[in-house]
Amino acid sequence: MQLSDSEIQMLGGFAAELADAAGKAILPYFRTRMHVEDKGGQRFDPVTLADKAAERAMREMIGRRFPEHGIHGEEEGHAPGRSPIKWVLDPIDGTRAFITGLPQWGTLIALNDGERPRIGIMNQPFTGERFLGMPSGAWLNGMPIQVSPCASLAQARISCTSPQIFNAPGQLEAFNRVADRARLVRYGGDCYAYCMVACGHIDAVIEAGLKPYDIQALMPIIESAGGIVSTWDGGDPQDGGAIVACGDKRLHAEILRYLDGS
Amino acid sequence: MQLSDSEIQMLGGFAAELADAAGKAILPYFRTRMHVEDKGGQRFDPVTLADKAAERAMREMIGRRFPEHGIHGEEEGHAPGRSPIKWVLDPIDGTRAFITGLPQWGTLIALNDGERPRIGIMNQPFTGERFLGMPSGAWLNGMPIQVSPCASLAQARISCTSPQIFNAPGQLEAFNRVADRARLVRYGGDCYAYCMVACGHIDAVIEAGLKPYDIQALMPIIESAGGIVSTWDGGDPQDGGAIVACGDKRLHAEILRYLDGS
Repeated sequence: MQLSDSEIQMLGGFAAELADAAGKAILPYFRTRMHVEDKGGQRFDPVTLADKAAERAMREMIGRRFPEHGIHGEEEGHAPGRSPIKWVLDPIDGTRAFITGLPQWGTLIALNDGERPRIGIMNQPFTGERFLGMPSGAWLNGMPIQVSPCASLAQARISCTSPQIFNAPGQLEAFNRVADRARLVRYGGDCYAYCMVACGHIDAVIEAGLKPYDIQALMPIIESAGGIVSTWDGGDPQDGGAIVACGDKRLHAEILRYLDGS
Repeated sequence: MQLSDSEIQMLGGFAAELADAAGKAILPYFRTRMHVEDKGGQRFDPVTLADKAAERAMREMIGRRFPEHGIHGEEEGHAPGRSPIKWVLDPIDGTRAFITGLPQWGTLIALNDGERPRIGIMNQPFTGERFLGMPSGAWLNGMPIQVSPCASLAQARISCTSPQIFNAPGQLEAFNRVADRARLVRYGGDCYAYCMVACGHIDAVIEAGLKPYDIQALMPIIESAGGIVSTWDGGDPQDGGAIVACGDKRLHAEILRYLDGS
């Protein structure tokens, strides 16, 4: 459905409220340790507790304010709405970063109008960074952000969370065809690396096995900063899978050729 | 040489002044972009400029206050002193993290008394985190830190900056023998991952090809937090090379066996 500029603005403001609530729910659990409670012997698992608490907080806020909207969240799955508008939520993207005390995790919030994600937020409450993308632009804490030009893979800084994510046949070989030609490869980025593409510090992120809620919030951030996101075969990335996000369309075209390998 | 408690205290305070100065020199360059200057066509390379500016600032401060001390820095090499005391400096450990806008870099400052590093600082000015280790304890921003118990590799969260660092024959296979048995493997940590060992969020860091200035500052932080650092064959880690840092001595012993592979 077609959202007006003022509807987008209003929904972007609400998305920021969701990010505030998620950050408040998650941060007390960051850098606390998994343990078995002395009383009752229950397992205290900070990342699961934080994930659930943040998604519950966001679902309650959406349910109160926009009961007609659908919700697709990592923890509690799909709740279709009467409206085609859907919130796509990943309370903690980067679970391994969270568990190991590193700041490369974030809360991902996307507003999908039924066709594409139009608003995206990546919120990192520990470093105090909020990345926002809307049709009108992309910002880090209110400052406009922009991708860097990068004409070729030989000059490119590329990133991927871990070589272990390439599980399907041929994926690791395809990634290595790209990585071997890049100027620099950096591992361990999670959602943070996609935001660094939007800021112009990384030229490409190449990953696989993503879920819709892993990528939808990042699409408006990168696209409104001037970049491009697609599947490895150049298709619509919003359902996840094998994904390439680039700052420069020329680099994107070159990477797709090496991933294809034909 | 034997440093007294009060000498250690005084030198620890001075190391903190070095960290302040390095942070001030580096931070203006973080997340600025490499480019060719419009006037004169000179290349603007933020990480090299930041590295050099920070090391120069620290060398000048040491030269003024302790002209008899030796200095071993990543940028300007070795300047032996009349005293056995030596400052071992890496102004930006984690150059790739710095280049790609990620916060896993830090300034490493060690005071070596001629036998071992006795004081270590890892300073991350973007997140505002300072890790300090001395014979009397280990702290993050003044709060005591401590490793986690981890009895076995099957429960361990392990980290390494990149599988690409295992260049010597057999190293990658040795690392994979460990990684395949771990609960979780996280890439992209640099000096930050070692500090997460000291804080109890990571159980082991396994790396290779390190220089003395990559590891000396981290040794007092991890050791004073209750952990252990050695080479892969269990030797003294202060000259760098292939390194294992663990929070728990039992895990350390198990990892050495798998690295050895015999």
